[in-house]
Amino acid sequence: MADRQRWVAVARDVAARLAADAVEREAKGAEPVAEVALLRESGLLPLMIPTADGGHGADWTTAHAVLAEVAAADASVGHLLGYHYLHVWRTTLFDRPDATTAANRATAAHGWFWAGVANPRDDALVLSTHDGGYLVNGRKFFATGASVADRLVVSGHHEASGRKLTFTLDAAAPGIRYLGDWDNLGQRLSASGGVEFTDVHVPESAVLGAQPAPGEPRANRDSLAALGFQLVLSRVLVAVGRGALAEAARYTRDVSRAWPASGVERAADDPHTLAAYGTLTARLDAAELLVDAAARAFEAAAADPDLGAERRGETSVRISAAKVVSSELATEIGSRVFELTGARATAARYGLDRFWRNARTLTLHDPAVYKATEVGRHLLTGEFPAPSGYS
Amino acid sequence: MADRQRWVAVARDVAARLAADAVEREAKGAEPVAEVALLRESGLLPLMIPTADGGHGADWTTAHAVLAEVAAADASVGHLLGYHYLHVWRTTLFDRPDATTAANRATAAHGWFWAGVANPRDDALVLSTHDGGYLVNGRKFFATGASVADRLVVSGHHEASGRKLTFTLDAAAPGIRYLGDWDNLGQRLSASGGVEFTDVHVPESAVLGAQPAPGEPRANRDSLAALGFQLVLSRVLVAVGRGALAEAARYTRDVSRAWPASGVERAADDPHTLAAYGTLTARLDAAELLVDAAARAFEAAAADPDLGAERRGETSVRISAAKVVSSELATEIGSRVFELTGARATAARYGLDRFWRNARTLTLHDPAVYKATEVGRHLLTGEFPAPSGYS
Amino acid sequence: MADRQRWVAVARDVAARLAADAVEREAKGAEPVAEVALLRESGLLPLMIPTADGGHGADWTTAHAVLAEVAAADASVGHLLGYHYLHVWRTTLFDRPDATTAANRATAAHGWFWAGVANPRDDALVLSTHDGGYLVNGRKFFATGASVADRLVVSGHHEASGRKLTFTLDAAAPGIRYLGDWDNLGQRLSASGGVEFTDVHVPESAVLGAQPAPGEPRANRDSLAALGFQLVLSRVLVAVGRGALAEAARYTRDVSRAWPASGVERAADDPHTLAAYGTLTARLDAAELLVDAAARAFEAAAADPDLGAERRGETSVRISAAKVVSSELATEIGSRVFELTGARATAARYGLDRFWRNARTLTLHDPAVYKATEVGRHLLTGEFPAPSGYS
Amino acid sequence: MADRQRWVAVARDVAARLAADAVEREAKGAEPVAEVALLRESGLLPLMIPTADGGHGADWTTAHAVLAEVAAADASVGHLLGYHYLHVWRTTLFDRPDATTAANRATAAHGWFWAGVANPRDDALVLSTHDGGYLVNGRKFFATGASVADRLVVSGHHEASGRKLTFTLDAAAPGIRYLGDWDNLGQRLSASGGVEFTDVHVPESAVLGAQPAPGEPRANRDSLAALGFQLVLSRVLVAVGRGALAEAARYTRDVSRAWPASGVERAADDPHTLAAYGTLTARLDAAELLVDAAARAFEAAAADPDLGAERRGETSVRISAAKVVSSELATEIGSRVFELTGARATAARYGLDRFWRNARTLTLHDPAVYKATEVGRHLLTGEFPAPSGYS
Repeated sequence: MADRQRWVAVARDVAARLAADAVEREAKGAEPVAEVALLRESGLLPLMIPTADGGHGADWTTAHAVLAEVAAADASVGHLLGYHYLHVWRTTLFDRPDATTAANRATAAHGWFWAGVANPRDDALVLSTHDGGYLVNGRKFFATGASVADRLVVSGHHEASGRKLTFTLDAAAPGIRYLGDWDNLGQRLSASGGVEFTDVHVPESAVLGAQPAPGEPRANRDSLAALGFQLVLSRVLVAVGRGALAEAARYTRDVSRAWPASGVERAADDPHTLAAYGTLTARLDAAELLVDAAARAFEAAAADPDLGAERRGETSVRISAAKVVSSELATEIGSRVFELTGARATAARYGLDRFWRNARTLTLHDPAVYKATEVGRHLLTGEFPAPSGYS
Repeated sequence: MADRQRWVAVARDVAARLAADAVEREAKGAEPVAEVALLRESGLLPLMIPTADGGHGADWTTAHAVLAEVAAADASVGHLLGYHYLHVWRTTLFDRPDATTAANRATAAHGWFWAGVANPRDDALVLSTHDGGYLVNGRKFFATGASVADRLVVSGHHEASGRKLTFTLDAAAPGIRYLGDWDNLGQRLSASGGVEFTDVHVPESAVLGAQPAPGEPRANRDSLAALGFQLVLSRVLVAVGRGALAEAARYTRDVSRAWPASGVERAADDPHTLAAYGTLTARLDAAELLVDAAARAFEAAAADPDLGAERRGETSVRISAAKVVSSELATEIGSRVFELTGARATAARYGLDRFWRNARTLTLHDPAVYKATEVGRHLLTGEFPAPSGYS
Repeated sequence: MADRQRWVAVARDVAARLAADAVEREAKGAEPVAEVALLRESGLLPLMIPTADGGHGADWTTAHAVLAEVAAADASVGHLLGYHYLHVWRTTLFDRPDATTAANRATAAHGWFWAGVANPRDDALVLSTHDGGYLVNGRKFFATGASVADRLVVSGHHEASGRKLTFTLDAAAPGIRYLGDWDNLGQRLSASGGVEFTDVHVPESAVLGAQPAPGEPRANRDSLAALGFQLVLSRVLVAVGRGALAEAARYTRDVSRAWPASGVERAADDPHTLAAYGTLTARLDAAELLVDAAARAFEAAAADPDLGAERRGETSVRISAAKVVSSELATEIGSRVFELTGARATAARYGLDRFWRNARTLTLHDPAVYKATEVGRHLLTGEFPAPSGYS
Repeated sequence: MADRQRWVAVARDVAARLAADAVEREAKGAEPVAEVALLRESGLLPLMIPTADGGHGADWTTAHAVLAEVAAADASVGHLLGYHYLHVWRTTLFDRPDATTAANRATAAHGWFWAGVANPRDDALVLSTHDGGYLVNGRKFFATGASVADRLVVSGHHEASGRKLTFTLDAAAPGIRYLGDWDNLGQRLSASGGVEFTDVHVPESAVLGAQPAPGEPRANRDSLAALGFQLVLSRVLVAVGRGALAEAARYTRDVSRAWPASGVERAADDPHTLAAYGTLTARLDAAELLVDAAARAFEAAAADPDLGAERRGETSVRISAAKVVSSELATEIGSRVFELTGARATAARYGLDRFWRNARTLTLHDPAVYKATEVGRHLLTGEFPAPSGYS
């Protein structure tokens, strides 16, 4: 607990540094090299690595508390950091404790930043057997963080066995080309451009394992990864809402002028402005508690070596609920803050639109309405979502 | 914790019995005498009374867990029970441990049900000094539970001193007339009709104390009562939402017919129905967590003998946030469940409209928009709501 | 035009008489015999019958202007009157000008009130050939207005030919039993209970015709009837919104007390109340214009003897749009008026909840989301809704 | 009418040319010189100038039909064109028919584009008497279109008389400096940067007149100008919604991929996508009809030489209603189109966010909630909005 507070304090410090030039950095849209360096220097990268391996041994609750701070200041950096935690943790889902330990130790020792190449909406990368290992070929349209990562977790389809294999890789391995083509509405500093693999060599030892078939003992645990990503997205979305309200509130208080017809002297006394801030804050408080509860459920599921379908399913439903609520709210707040700040707040130098742009981009990762469908089906029939790349 | 689970189980049993004929009882709209008797038999009435005084010694968290169950089955009974807990507990806010102990013991011994007469929107009852005590005169338009109570907590204006005095009273004391005029949209079994006092005699010993002036040491603690009522209303509202979704889901699953244009066989597979149930459930999960958090804050504040303005203020803001979110959501769910069940669900025998009617009635107790204003002002300026009959 | 104004004035007079005891009549929930008598006396029943046949020769635009007034005062009576117009007009959709003329003349002469028995969600009534005509058997769960009608338009399945036949019938014909079982949330005076047919004899001459197969020349015109019902429902829904706002505004102005925290003297000066009334009024103005435009489109389609699929389709899309907007808005207004009037407005004697109950009941006739789907599909693909009992 | 159709066809042609490179032009954000040239070549600039003065003599209804087309393709250009019509027309509100005629003729002859300098939220420009005319000094933070205009309509405070004077001016007059500092969220091609006046000379003959005091006969007519601007903003907002839905629908149809869990082959068959497009389209149809009705009311008021307070007031309320509905809807559509198109639609090259950015910027011109307040107050009390720079 004391430890948690310590890391939250570190995260706040990182957040303050990110906030100082958030608008300029976002407008420039450079590769987030400096941002990753800041994370590295802060000590947050090995946060979840066991102390035995040289890390800080923090749990998911602490990690989420850290993400909340960082993502409120810079949603892209929060996104990168959350995915990094997931990729490092994902190695534990395979029967390769040796690989996990090696990865952990090197990460702690070298301050590695991890990213993944596994977007389920593209065709899979293809692995062909080659020289005691594999050659990987193919292209992924999005791979958040990969271009600024030290190490990658990659999944691909092994032609010979017909199985999906997951392996780790030096992000600078020959044959990997980062397309640098992420020029999208939001999350502009998330290094989410495409990646091309041309005969990238992967030794057998780098393979963490194959995706278990549904029903295999390991299947439920393996399928937690997708939930972890949904949860991090929910966390970042809530943080976007928090960041937007905080920045808008500063503007309303310090810059906005009262509207003549309002009959008040200060914009911060406008009755409609007060009620709107209050309504949005109250809803966001609720949404954040839902993400917190989902994070606790996820942590418990992740700690269960014999994770069964029911606990896995309940965790999945909770995370879907968190995604639904955080998605609709972050988008709404991102758009409505302008009503609370006024016309001049649209000046580019305030960058107040980045919250909406980030929320809007994050909420499209996969459609919230199908998350809602999962929650609704569970209520109506007791059914759990079928594990997939998104559930 | 084991104890909490035990009382939740009791509450579930009470809820099941209330649910069995909820529609018929509500339609009939009789005074909730049988309902209070059911609470009495269940052992839930002395739930929060210290074990030393013969009660069960449960905390507010347990009480709220109990209320959640009861109110989902019958919002009126949940309302009555929540107010009962508040009135018993309120006696502790005065410097009269003797009176509290006496009230506790008698409540535990006789199974007393408590209610209050203190609606802040009416003119105050008037106390005139008389014969080593007071005579009380006046009329209150609403007094939830009073007509079916054993004991009352009453507040009135003492003419001679100019102070607001609070006292306890036998609900059957001569001179009290229950008007039985509660014929309103919802909460029809909450016994919320008016009360008339004609020369009701109150001995000095029955007076718990005077309302402290703002700034007096006791003022912050004294002002918790209003927060407790707001919190119970929020709890009941969330429970109304939960009850509505549960009952509607049963109907959709068991009775609704799929709409021809939906292309599905069962109404429970309609994509719009699934997504709507999911969205409302997700929002309600969030709202419930917000009420839970507010209840924990309230419990902590109530346990603080030196409650200061800041903790009092933060508790107040949290409870206002809970009220805002629960109000808008309970009303929305109460109305939208019909879209999820279909035309035939409007038949009176299903009574599915009672959720909207109860939510609508409860949400008007005081306007949610002014609760939102308090939350918004706190965000913008750090100010806390001024203590009042509602905040 | 002068004529239109004259009939609107008549409708206003009827509306004023209906409004005078609307709450009491609705609470009582008797069969709307007196209400139909009022319509009869007012001269509104033969409004659309050609002057050559003894009617007033008004067009659909006039009829809708009349319905707007009547339905704002009493949604059930507006519903009955709108359906009456549709049933009289429906006879023109068949190749039986003689039958139409006869029906028109008798309606004008005797002041007949018409209703229908054709709810598409039940099993069809069954016609068996018998004695130069048919015997009708079966049961319909809903048949708005039938039990207080003079004449019925009925549809049933003719076993021998396999066709759906439509015929007119004396509502008092032997073998018809009105179940009087409409005990639903809203539209309580719409006489919408079930009807049972036991060997009801229908002479061949009473048969207006068979439903054309898709593609038959008459099919597009025949399918207008379903659109007419959707349009009347949209009209009544907008009128419910209008009636609710008007009645709530009176209450806010004359009865509501300003909330203490509002800082204003009169409830009608509360900034949140003002803005909410304004927002709802503005949306309702827009919705009403959409229904008006749909009514003009319907009138033009109804006047087109060679109605083609495209014009039919465009009319259908417009009417679906009107249904979508009027449905969501009437329900919202019906629920939100309580926020604008306050806690005491929930007293049963004000009956302010009837607007929500009526809106909620009317909006479930068929799901608005499938109307929205039709509009969306048309935008995306240019497709028109397939004619059905609802589109 | 034939004429109206002709000009709508011209507007469609202009719209098509604007649409062809709308994304690129917007991203570049250059001064809209080419855009104004396109308007000039199209013949749309003198649209409303009387034929006697060399214009096309079109009415406001035609002008709004033209604006609807142009603004759906490019909201900035629609904004510029609408303001141009208003500025030319505004000259008729003064008792200077000679000045109007001269302005009209020159506009028709030279293809002048007009803009204004009159933002009521800044301090006024100051006129000091000088050499048979005035010197103008001061600065305005926003002046839509001014930097690309040929002629300006300017208002300023005349120190000596204490009156607000309005005058016309060559936009290239010495002493006017265009700050080119419009770098805002949306309406990026609207040339809305600031303007600085340094000893700009205005001859007496250029002065159209002084703002009448409230109560002066000319006051009601004079105050129409503010309404005209509100109406044009409403028109552009509806057009933004229309443009967004049209562009999104193309994307959904041609580019989007069906979501795996949807169970459909084509994104355009997704049930949630269909219903959402339908709901938004239906609401937008309603909003557009409300703007159309407001435009007709405005046209009638503008044509009334003896415009009284009541007609002025009713026009004002109607326009406020149109502004409320169009504001909330354009913003919502601008944000929600992404849910209907999917993650890849956030790529910068699609520029799909410009609709939200334009809507958001336009809706902040003045707060919609105070327009709603005006509508609400009128419903509750019959009061009309006090004429101001915004009402």
